[in-house]
Amino acid sequence: MFRKILVANRGEIAVRVMRSCKELGIKTVAVYSEADVKSFHRVYADECYYIGKAEPSESYLNIEKIIEVAKRSGAEAIHPGYGFLAENAEFARRCEEEGIVFIGPPADVIEAMGSKVNARKLMREAGVPVIPGSDEIESAEEAKEFAEKVGYPVAVKASGGGGGIGISIAHNEEELVKAFERSKKLGEKYFKDPTVYVEKYLPKPRHIEFQILADDSKVIHLGERECSIQRRHQKLIEEAPSPIFDEEMREKFGKIAVKGAKHIGYRNAGTMEFLYQDGEIYFLEMNTRLQVEHTITEMVTGIDIVKEQIRIASGEGMSVDQEDVKIRGHAIECRINAEDPINFLPRTGKITHYRSPGGPGIRVDSGVHMGYEIPPYYDPMISKLIAWGRTRIEAIARMRRALYEYVIEGVETNIPFHIVVLNDEEFVKGNTHTRFVEERKIVERVKSVLDAIDHLKKRLDEIFTADHFVSEEDIVAAAISAAIAEYLKDSGVVEMKTSQAWKTISRLKTLGWI
Amino acid sequence: MFRKILVANRGEIAVRVMRSCKELGIKTVAVYSEADVKSFHRVYADECYYIGKAEPSESYLNIEKIIEVAKRSGAEAIHPGYGFLAENAEFARRCEEEGIVFIGPPADVIEAMGSKVNARKLMREAGVPVIPGSDEIESAEEAKEFAEKVGYPVAVKASGGGGGIGISIAHNEEELVKAFERSKKLGEKYFKDPTVYVEKYLPKPRHIEFQILADDSKVIHLGERECSIQRRHQKLIEEAPSPIFDEEMREKFGKIAVKGAKHIGYRNAGTMEFLYQDGEIYFLEMNTRLQVEHTITEMVTGIDIVKEQIRIASGEGMSVDQEDVKIRGHAIECRINAEDPINFLPRTGKITHYRSPGGPGIRVDSGVHMGYEIPPYYDPMISKLIAWGRTRIEAIARMRRALYEYVIEGVETNIPFHIVVLNDEEFVKGNTHTRFVEERKIVERVKSVLDAIDHLKKRLDEIFTADHFVSEEDIVAAAISAAIAEYLKDSGVVEMKTSQAWKTISRLKTLGWI
Repeated sequence: MFRKILVANRGEIAVRVMRSCKELGIKTVAVYSEADVKSFHRVYADECYYIGKAEPSESYLNIEKIIEVAKRSGAEAIHPGYGFLAENAEFARRCEEEGIVFIGPPADVIEAMGSKVNARKLMREAGVPVIPGSDEIESAEEAKEFAEKVGYPVAVKASGGGGGIGISIAHNEEELVKAFERSKKLGEKYFKDPTVYVEKYLPKPRHIEFQILADDSKVIHLGERECSIQRRHQKLIEEAPSPIFDEEMREKFGKIAVKGAKHIGYRNAGTMEFLYQDGEIYFLEMNTRLQVEHTITEMVTGIDIVKEQIRIASGEGMSVDQEDVKIRGHAIECRINAEDPINFLPRTGKITHYRSPGGPGIRVDSGVHMGYEIPPYYDPMISKLIAWGRTRIEAIARMRRALYEYVIEGVETNIPFHIVVLNDEEFVKGNTHTRFVEERKIVERVKSVLDAIDHLKKRLDEIFTADHFVSEEDIVAAAISAAIAEYLKDSGVVEMKTSQAWKTISRLKTLGWI
Repeated sequence: MFRKILVANRGEIAVRVMRSCKELGIKTVAVYSEADVKSFHRVYADECYYIGKAEPSESYLNIEKIIEVAKRSGAEAIHPGYGFLAENAEFARRCEEEGIVFIGPPADVIEAMGSKVNARKLMREAGVPVIPGSDEIESAEEAKEFAEKVGYPVAVKASGGGGGIGISIAHNEEELVKAFERSKKLGEKYFKDPTVYVEKYLPKPRHIEFQILADDSKVIHLGERECSIQRRHQKLIEEAPSPIFDEEMREKFGKIAVKGAKHIGYRNAGTMEFLYQDGEIYFLEMNTRLQVEHTITEMVTGIDIVKEQIRIASGEGMSVDQEDVKIRGHAIECRINAEDPINFLPRTGKITHYRSPGGPGIRVDSGVHMGYEIPPYYDPMISKLIAWGRTRIEAIARMRRALYEYVIEGVETNIPFHIVVLNDEEFVKGNTHTRFVEERKIVERVKSVLDAIDHLKKRLDEIFTADHFVSEEDIVAAAISAAIAEYLKDSGVVEMKTSQAWKTISRLKTLGWI
């Protein structure tokens, strides 16, 4: 087993990886940029090294610098986390060259799956269902021909894309010409690759993905996750298992995912992403790394995926067989971001007060602490909030309760977004799909909640000028109840009966607060 | 189902109960004393009521006041938590009289099990093995006769006792006379009951207890907990399952526990406590309430015990059958107390910095927050830290990791105690018994750690007067490593090789810090 591992990442995921290292008795080496001098991951490691300026290209994407630190510190292996260099074949190759173990798949596998066109070709070869899609397309004319064959709507995608960047939807010929040009440009801009392809577009699919583990002797899956709640093609809420999967579907589709991973000689942890509609799955892409939402699979299987990654990379091999994988209960993850919950723009600022939720079934993976200043250079994720329950309904109830408990002050977060989704009746029924956020008008409903709170704040200002209040805390608590009662009682966001609303308001009036 | 529940308790357990209420959609009513105006449980509830001065007799033990609040707030049921009124038959009876549901067993069952002598009699009737023990004993002569029959050592116990109060051990006749007088006095003083009895004393038993759930139609058990790590007969570390139990033992002894609970017509959650030695269990007492350490059973079974208590009390009945109870993995709980880790005296003070651990397998149940002032009137427990793992070894590794992560500043805690136990080789092997803390010289070892830290602090003072440091954080981190290396390398507390120690020290020297 390794004695020392360098974690080439920052924030929440760096801490997550180091936690498993600590539990395995492995020393950890952190790297940090100028913006992360006070970051929790730096303090958490056994050793830490400064690697450059805040801009990722100067630090967390600086391959040679990171390899130099690995050698200087005597780290035998590097865990890349997700993002940054996690799916960079060149980095994996440089590690191999320097005799450092890259905790992930071989460089050529990363490369093979990095091109979406190539990945789909390989999966077709393996007999994994793929969404009807074209090869690389050179002209808008070619795109039109393909679209006529499979029928509109279609999606034009940048071959080097990911995370939703470079995807354009077209419902007719006219839109298709524009979509073709747009995706080409975005591909060129973001991935230095203007290659595009066209796919049949599913209007309301579910996003289903299978967690894969592979070592030298076997490939297994840890069941599926459903990640349908997305905004701008970025996942915000994930759950395991999918609300509509049963053991039979898990086994059937899990076998297909394993077949695909085997075909490309996969090693280590990876995720096969699919779209699901009407009883069929279609391969979307493979993420050749640890996924943000790996936590929910850990909650329902009890398996520590990061530890398995390390065991596989060390040559020891994974500690589980397919028959050890038993799903217990249900887990949901909400990504808590520092962002405007309406327009999703990242927010920066200092966390002036912080209290994480706890109690039964709650897990918090965070890289922040009270007093921490969120820098503008990176992913604005504050933490991952995970709730487990014996049933999906219990997991939802716990998540709502944990969102209520979570105190993050000083910076705006997307907690209101999560509260609205977790209280949506279609979500509760499990009627989720990748167009859920738009169709259920989540953003509009979040806006109405926030407007109500704004209104409340103004009224609170008036209240505070009075001289007959008991304590600030009392007023805030009472006034918030009243505001919820008065403004949100018909919104479906908060279940409150009119009689309760009036009781609250009349109590406040008795106290002379409104 | 109830619409509103009053929680007649404070701190961590009040929050714990309210969490389950929230998840079930039940409104919560908190009561608070003068010392708890800023307590988290007060803010957490939907409504809260002041019930009196800080002294428990004026507030949390004030039966009539609490019942008055329940009626005023419209609460249909009262959950007593543990401690305070949880095992007070009079309180349960008063609730019944007022038409308020007491979430616990019937008053007469509380009463029957409240007398240790009576409880043992009832268990003997039920065919539950009981430690060879006398009936009530009137004189030292009678005690001697009994001791000669079963052999020394023997324990003299106050009949009304609990939590280790009123127990005196005697190894010979002379000691027995003193023990008899001592237990009589303590019983009179603390429980207003001078009745005592004598038992065969087991030198190195394990404390094993079974979690019972009982409703109108069935009695089941949720497996055992081992709570052998105690100081002064107070549990500090608990685990589930017991390191030496297998499925067969669980079934065999679980059936005995269920038989005992059935015999007395038990209802709701309760715990049958046993001593275990050489393949035999002996009934110790029954706790007719929720136990502090119920959390670890929740972690391994996935069952929310508080929710089941509420379901049972509401008449709905429990949601599980015996065959639904499956143990997965291993869980450990450390009680984090504000106390001197050497002499176990409670500490008070303001928590100036607080960061709870997180990540895989970690649960924190706390009633505190940053800025909270621990009052001198109550149990000094800050939180319960729970670690789950697929195996006992993984649970231990996670607990160590979580103890390392836990930041509580401003008040002394027993975290050093837990660190020493969790790193003890006999603990790791599972060789635990109720005399473990003394036999393994845990307190002495904690003292050596704290002495080393004291020494370090003095050296740090010197370092801080120098003008060439980089940042306070760096120095503290580095100096602590050096101190650990230098002072603790032979203590067995922290595993560190001499070479590593010297590397750390020489790095500090290079940096000019020492």
